Amino acid sequence: MKAIILQDTPGLDNLRIVERPMPKPRRQEILVQVKATALNYRDVEIVNGTYHTAFDLPLVPLSDGVGEVVAIGEEVTRFKIGDRVCSTFWQRWVGGSFHMAQAAYQRGGPIDGMLAEHALLDEQAAVLAPRNLTDVEAATLPCAAVTAWHALVTEGAIKAGETVLVQGTGGVSLFALQFARTSGARVIVTSSSDRKLERAKVLGAHAGINYRQVPEWSDAVLDLTDGQGVDHIIEVGGPQSFEQSLKAAARRGQINIIGYLGGKEGAINPLDIFKRQVQVRGIPVGSRESFEAMNRAIEVNDLKPVIDRTFPWTEAAEAMRYLESGSHFGKIALVHA
Amino acid sequence: MKAIILQDTPGLDNLRIVERPMPKPRRQEILVQVKATALNYRDVEIVNGTYHTAFDLPLVPLSDGVGEVVAIGEEVTRFKIGDRVCSTFWQRWVGGSFHMAQAAYQRGGPIDGMLAEHALLDEQAAVLAPRNLTDVEAATLPCAAVTAWHALVTEGAIKAGETVLVQGTGGVSLFALQFARTSGARVIVTSSSDRKLERAKVLGAHAGINYRQVPEWSDAVLDLTDGQGVDHIIEVGGPQSFEQSLKAAARRGQINIIGYLGGKEGAINPLDIFKRQVQVRGIPVGSRESFEAMNRAIEVNDLKPVIDRTFPWTEAAEAMRYLESGSHFGKIALVHA
Amino acid sequence: MKAIILQDTPGLDNLRIVERPMPKPRRQEILVQVKATALNYRDVEIVNGTYHTAFDLPLVPLSDGVGEVVAIGEEVTRFKIGDRVCSTFWQRWVGGSFHMAQAAYQRGGPIDGMLAEHALLDEQAAVLAPRNLTDVEAATLPCAAVTAWHALVTEGAIKAGETVLVQGTGGVSLFALQFARTSGARVIVTSSSDRKLERAKVLGAHAGINYRQVPEWSDAVLDLTDGQGVDHIIEVGGPQSFEQSLKAAARRGQINIIGYLGGKEGAINPLDIFKRQVQVRGIPVGSRESFEAMNRAIEVNDLKPVIDRTFPWTEAAEAMRYLESGSHFGKIALVHA
Amino acid sequence: MKAIILQDTPGLDNLRIVERPMPKPRRQEILVQVKATALNYRDVEIVNGTYHTAFDLPLVPLSDGVGEVVAIGEEVTRFKIGDRVCSTFWQRWVGGSFHMAQAAYQRGGPIDGMLAEHALLDEQAAVLAPRNLTDVEAATLPCAAVTAWHALVTEGAIKAGETVLVQGTGGVSLFALQFARTSGARVIVTSSSDRKLERAKVLGAHAGINYRQVPEWSDAVLDLTDGQGVDHIIEVGGPQSFEQSLKAAARRGQINIIGYLGGKEGAINPLDIFKRQVQVRGIPVGSRESFEAMNRAIEVNDLKPVIDRTFPWTEAAEAMRYLESGSHFGKIALVHA
Repeated sequence: MKAIILQDTPGLDNLRIVERPMPKPRRQEILVQVKATALNYRDVEIVNGTYHTAFDLPLVPLSDGVGEVVAIGEEVTRFKIGDRVCSTFWQRWVGGSFHMAQAAYQRGGPIDGMLAEHALLDEQAAVLAPRNLTDVEAATLPCAAVTAWHALVTEGAIKAGETVLVQGTGGVSLFALQFARTSGARVIVTSSSDRKLERAKVLGAHAGINYRQVPEWSDAVLDLTDGQGVDHIIEVGGPQSFEQSLKAAARRGQINIIGYLGGKEGAINPLDIFKRQVQVRGIPVGSRESFEAMNRAIEVNDLKPVIDRTFPWTEAAEAMRYLESGSHFGKIALVHA
Repeated sequence: MKAIILQDTPGLDNLRIVERPMPKPRRQEILVQVKATALNYRDVEIVNGTYHTAFDLPLVPLSDGVGEVVAIGEEVTRFKIGDRVCSTFWQRWVGGSFHMAQAAYQRGGPIDGMLAEHALLDEQAAVLAPRNLTDVEAATLPCAAVTAWHALVTEGAIKAGETVLVQGTGGVSLFALQFARTSGARVIVTSSSDRKLERAKVLGAHAGINYRQVPEWSDAVLDLTDGQGVDHIIEVGGPQSFEQSLKAAARRGQINIIGYLGGKEGAINPLDIFKRQVQVRGIPVGSRESFEAMNRAIEVNDLKPVIDRTFPWTEAAEAMRYLESGSHFGKIALVHA
Repeated sequence: MKAIILQDTPGLDNLRIVERPMPKPRRQEILVQVKATALNYRDVEIVNGTYHTAFDLPLVPLSDGVGEVVAIGEEVTRFKIGDRVCSTFWQRWVGGSFHMAQAAYQRGGPIDGMLAEHALLDEQAAVLAPRNLTDVEAATLPCAAVTAWHALVTEGAIKAGETVLVQGTGGVSLFALQFARTSGARVIVTSSSDRKLERAKVLGAHAGINYRQVPEWSDAVLDLTDGQGVDHIIEVGGPQSFEQSLKAAARRGQINIIGYLGGKEGAINPLDIFKRQVQVRGIPVGSRESFEAMNRAIEVNDLKPVIDRTFPWTEAAEAMRYLESGSHFGKIALVHA
Repeated sequence: MKAIILQDTPGLDNLRIVERPMPKPRRQEILVQVKATALNYRDVEIVNGTYHTAFDLPLVPLSDGVGEVVAIGEEVTRFKIGDRVCSTFWQRWVGGSFHMAQAAYQRGGPIDGMLAEHALLDEQAAVLAPRNLTDVEAATLPCAAVTAWHALVTEGAIKAGETVLVQGTGGVSLFALQFARTSGARVIVTSSSDRKLERAKVLGAHAGINYRQVPEWSDAVLDLTDGQGVDHIIEVGGPQSFEQSLKAAARRGQINIIGYLGGKEGAINPLDIFKRQVQVRGIPVGSRESFEAMNRAIEVNDLKPVIDRTFPWTEAAEAMRYLESGSHFGKIALVHA
C-alpha cells in the first residue's frame, strides 16, 4: 500500500509517497482503507518542524481521517468489516478527565497518521462515523470538531440561552458555531473579512465583528450583550486576542485557549483574570467519549461540517500550503479513494 | 383591588371574588398589576383540598402570573416601575441547591397567590418576563416551564444528541419538549391521542407513541433508540407509568419524577433501579437562577409556550374544571387586564 | 500453573483445582503472579449459579486480586516487571461515564478471574497497588472499595461536613465509612450487632444504630441529624431497607443502591422518591479512573482495608461458605503466594 | 451605640469612633450585638484608599464579624433572639453561581460593616456561627474561610488524595490548608519563614518550601509530587508567583487567583495556560450556601481557625498596621464585647 511520509527532514517539500507493506490487524486492531483525511495546523507545524515537539522520522502525518474497516483482529468486538470509522486523536483517552490520556499516543505524531491508503487503528481509538456525513465531511471531525465539542459541551456544559464568541472562521471556530447554535446558544463571530462574517451568519451566527475595522472588538461584544459579556470564548487568536477576550467575557465566562493564529507573542497580567472573575483553561482536543457524544449530536441535528476545499491526497503538500495561506472558511480535506 | 380567594372551605365552588385594600410595597417589595395568570394541577388540588398539605384559609390561589410593576419599595434595585415581571414559585430559593429553598415560602399556598388585580412580590422573588412573549405566554412559566428546565438543564445537564422522553402533552411535558429540541436533543412523546401526537411532532418531536394502543410502550421506545433507551424521562404519569419508564431508560438514564396524572397507586421493586443502572430523582420546580437562565433561552430561541385556552380571570373555577378534564394540549391561562 | 475453576456445573462443591498452561502476554498484556485475592457476594452467586447472568463454563472465578508483574507484552508502557498491580472489575471502563463500560468485559465472569497462580491482564485493566498496603489488603480493592468510592466520591461528590449512612459492616460499607471519614464527613452505621457497631466506631463512625432493636431506624437517623436526614446512603440491604432509607435521607439526599443482603423482595411507591425529593441511583462498581483516584487517597491518608479473615487460596470454597454465613466484619481474602 | 467610621478621607489615622443611633430591625432584618470582628487586606485597602473601588464616606469598615441577635424584624424566620450569627460578605448571594451576587451589596463597603457595637443584617445575609468556635474564631470566617472553601470545595470539588499548594500563611492559606486536610488531601505550603513552615506542618501540611531559599519553588513542588504537579493552587502571591504556579500545576490543575501579596506587577504569556493544560479562575469569596456548607464541615471536624493575635476593637487602626506588617500567621481579630 502507498503512504506519504516525512522521511528524515522537516519541510513541506520533503513529503514523499512510498510503498509500505500492508499492515495486518492483531488482537484488538482494525485495518482501515482510508477514504478521506483532513488537515489541522498541528499537522502543518509537524511537517514544517515548527511544532513544539519534534517526533522521530520517518512519520506518516495527519491525525484526522475516515475509512472503511477491511480487516479485524481476532479480539475485536466494537467493529465489523464494512463499518465506516473515524480515527481519534488521543489513542488512549477513552473517557474521563485528561489525566487518562497518555501523552505518547497521539495520532499523526508520534504515532503514524492517516495519510496513506490503509491505516491500522486500535478498536479503542476509533469511532463509527456519523451516518449523515460523506467521507470527506466525516474526515474533518477528530481534531477540530472534538476540540470545539470538548470546550463547549464536555468542559463548558453549554446551556441554551448562553452566548458564545468564536474567533475567526477556521475549523474549530465553525464547529463551535454549529455546536453552540444546536445547543440553543447565541453566537458572535469575529473575522477580518466581512464576506466571511456574512457566511458565518448564514450558518446561524447572530452577529459578526470585523476585528480589522474594530481592533477593540471587546467593546462591540459588550454592546451586543447589554454590557454583560459572553459566557464562552473560543480563543484561537493568541496572546493579542486574549487581551480582548478578557474584556469581552462575562463574570464566570469561560475562555477556552486553543490556538495562536495571530502569533505567539504577547503578555497579560494574570490579576486581570481575578479582576474580571473569569475562568481560563487550555483545551487538549478531547476523549473518545466526547467524540461519540458529539457524533450523536451531529446525527440527531443533521449537522454538516463546512468544507472549504478538497484536494487529492497525493497533493497533501499543496493542501498544506493552502491552509497556511489562511484564506479558507472551514476545513480542508483530502480525498483518498 | 379585587382578588379571588378560597374563604374557609376547599372546593371549586367556594372561590369568591372579594375587595381587598391595595397593598403598599415596603423596602424590597414591588407591587405588580397582574396581567395574566396560569393554572397548574397543584392549584386545583389546593382549591379542592386534595393537595398533600392543607394551608390556612383564606388564601388567594395561583403561583403563576405576570404583571407590570406599578410601585416599588424604597430599597428595590432589581426592578423599576413599568417593568414586566413573572412571579416565582419558591419565594426564597434564589439559587443553588434545593437546600436553599425555605418550605414555607411557596406562592399560591401558603403565601397568597396571583389570582387578583394586584400582587405584592419581594424583588428577590420575581424575574423579568421574556421580551418575546405576550402576557398570557409569560404567565405560564413559573411552575411548569421552570420544572421542565430544572429537570433537563439545571439537574439533567442535557446535551445535544441525547434523547428525551416526555409523557403526555400537558404544560411541563410540552415545555420539556421545547427545551429539549432547543438543546439539540431528540424527543419521543407518549399520549393517548394520535391527534395530540401529531401536534407534538409539529412542535419538533421526532416520534410519538400512543400508550393506549401500546401499553408496553417501553418496547416501542427501545425500538426507536436501537435498544439503547432514552437519556432523560419527564415522568408525570405516576407509579404505573414509572414501571415502563424504568424499562425505557438508558444506562445512567435520568428519570425525573414530577407528577402522577395517571394515579398515585402502584409499586416498584427498588432493585430494578439497580438492575437498570438508572438515576431517579424528584423535581421540586426550580430556583430563580434556573428561571432567569431559562428566560434567556426563551428569548434567544424565540420559544413560545403552547397555550391551549384562555379564560377571563374571574372564571377561574371554570378554567380549573377544564384543566381537570384533561383534554388540554399545553397551558391554560387567565387574562386579568 | 494451577487455577481453580468451576468446571461445568455451578456449586461451591464443584470448584476444582486444575493445571493450566502458563499464559504468555501479547502486545498490551501483562502476566501477573497472583499474591492474594478477595471475595465478593457476586463471586459466590456466580459459583452457586444464583447470579442474574449465567456465564459459560469452565470459568476461573474472582474479580479481585493483586499480583506481581512477571512478564509483559511488547507494547506495554504502563507497567514494568516487578510492579505490583491490582486487577480491575470492568476490563474496558477506563474512565468517564458508565456508558464507556462494555458489559461483556467483567473479570471473574465472563472473563476468567484471579483464582489462580497467574493471571493475564490488559495493561488498561490494571492499576498499581497502593504502596502502603500489604498484598492481602490490596487484593480487597477492585470491587468493594471502588464501589464505595464511586458512590460517594465519583458520583456523590462528597464534601466535608456532610452525613453518610452506611448499612452493615460488610466490605463496601466499611470502605464507605473510611472514605467518608477521610473526606471529612460524619458517618452513621446500622448493624444487627452491638459489637460490630462498637468496632465501626473505632474506625471513626460517629453513631451506630442496631436495626434489630430499632426496626424503624430512620427515626433514629432523623434524631441524630436534627431532623435533617443524611446526605448519602450506602444502600446494601434491599427493598425492605430501602423503605427506611427513603425516610432517613435529607432533601436531595443520594441513595446509592448497591446490594440486597436483606433479600430481594419488597416494593415501594416511586412517588415517595418525589415526595422526599431524594436522588436514587444504582452503582455499577466504577472505572479505572475512579480506582486510581481512590488509590491516591488510600496512600495519602494511609487507609487500611479491614480484613476479617484470610484463607489459603486453595480453600476458596471454605472461604465462600464463611462469607455466606454473614458473620464477617470487613473483607475475606485468600493468600496465594 | 458606638461605631468606628472612616469620616471623609481615607487613611488609617482617620478612623473615628462615633456615637450612632441604635438601629431598629425592619421586616427581615436582625439586629446583632457585635462580639468580635476580623481583618482582611481588603479592609485595610479600603481604609487606606488603595482599594480598586472607592466607596462613599462615611463608612463603617469590616466585612467580618460575629454577634448575638438582640432584636428581629417582624418577618424574620431564620433566626431568633439569642442566636449567634456571622455576617456574610455578599449580602445578596444566597446560593448558585456568582451571577447571583449583586455587586453593590458587599459588607464593609459600600454597605456599612461590622466595626461597631451593633450591626443590622438582613436575615438572608447571616449564618449561624459554628457551635464549636469562640466568638473570635467565628469572626474570622466570612471572607477568608469562605474564599478558601469556595476555591477548594464549591468550585474545586476537592477529593481525598489530591494535592493542594497554599502560598504563605495568611488567613485564606491556612483555612485552605485545614479544609484540604479535612478533605483528605495532601498539602504543600510555601513561605519565606522556616518557622512558619514548621507551624504549618503542625497544622497538617505534608511539606513546606521556603521560597526565599528556593525562588524557583515550582521545581521543589514537582520533586515532591513525582513530577506530576499539584491539583489545586491557592494563588495569593500575584503575577510573580503566578509564573511559578503555572509550572507547579498538574495537567488540569486548578489555579485559584485570590490575591497579590507579592505585588501587582508582572505578566505571563496566556499560551502557557494552554501549554500546561491548566485551569485558572478568580475567586470572589463565596455564597451563603458555601458558608453554611463550610460551617457544617467546621463543626463535624472541630476545625479551629488560627488566630494570630487579637486587639480591642477600639484599636482597629493599630490592628490594621499589624496586618500590613505581614508578620502574622493566621487571622487578626478584634474583640468587641
